[in-house]
Amino acid sequence: MIKEYSDLFDPSELPRRRKELHYYLAGFADGEACFSVSIKRLSTARFGWVIDPVFHITQNRQNILELFRRVIKCGRVIKKPGQPETFQFIVENRRQLVEKVIPFFERYRLLSKRKDFELFSEIVRRLERKEHWTREGFEAIVRMAFQMNSSGKQRRNRLDDILKSLRDPQRPYAGCPEEAEQA
Amino acid sequence: MIKEYSDLFDPSELPRRRKELHYYLAGFADGEACFSVSIKRLSTARFGWVIDPVFHITQNRQNILELFRRVIKCGRVIKKPGQPETFQFIVENRRQLVEKVIPFFERYRLLSKRKDFELFSEIVRRLERKEHWTREGFEAIVRMAFQMNSSGKQRRNRLDDILKSLRDPQRPYAGCPEEAEQA
Repeated sequence: MIKEYSDLFDPSELPRRRKELHYYLAGFADGEACFSVSIKRLSTARFGWVIDPVFHITQNRQNILELFRRVIKCGRVIKKPGQPETFQFIVENRRQLVEKVIPFFERYRLLSKRKDFELFSEIVRRLERKEHWTREGFEAIVRMAFQMNSSGKQRRNRLDDILKSLRDPQRPYAGCPEEAEQA
Repeated sequence: MIKEYSDLFDPSELPRRRKELHYYLAGFADGEACFSVSIKRLSTARFGWVIDPVFHITQNRQNILELFRRVIKCGRVIKKPGQPETFQFIVENRRQLVEKVIPFFERYRLLSKRKDFELFSEIVRRLERKEHWTREGFEAIVRMAFQMNSSGKQRRNRLDDILKSLRDPQRPYAGCPEEAEQA
């Protein structure tokens, strides 16, 4: 019996084996988690944009998120801004994504969000290799980000606009302003 | 390696053990499934209402739902009416709920939706024992249904209206008409 989360759940409610609990959490994440890579406008950045990978799960029950935080051993659980009854488990730190989140889901594999996860982890790996330091590398990552989460239907900035701006950084950007910059 | 779902998923993507797969599915369901008990207006029913328990999972990826159907060994996967790109795994048959769905989630326990599941299975058991054949039993089940899914915020009919109508079936019901009867 797993007893170390007894402040969150009655140990008799949890799966008996750690591996089973991890598969349970992988299944939960497959339905509820979001692997997101925002492309945000930032005029002081090398190419005028930053690439921002984030893993998060949004729920109105805090204890399941706290369980994630303690099993994956990183991230934080916060109240979702503007929604006081909603909580988020969020990992933004790239080192934690590389060392904790990605290995967890490589071991306990997602069935439904698998393509998003693969794009996400490939993008994070490319950032680790500093491939975004060249214009070609940056553009390739932006294109990958736009393949995620149903072809980026909800993105603020259009792929074409970002690519144009990357190729001609002197040209004033006509899209979303910097304040509301989530691409 | 579990090979019997190889038409849905590459067996190397699935957990190795059946039990681990079942925990994965329990986790997925804990995030995505809905245990719902509708109270529907039906003037020909004994007390003017029917109690309708349904288990369903809604997704835009069909293969994970098909996996549920085959693991739990009941229900059907349909296109969600009015949303051609969305699918539903749905179990409405009360015998299948009793013999397949409820035992599955009693063995592979939900952490987050646990209270909803317990109310759901208690309601289904009471229906099996025909407790809804008496007015008191019917009313008790209706009250339980209204404790589910965040206090029934999205229900069409108000608890008080249903209870009044149960206690005085001769009185014309002033709430939702029979056609749009989901309580």
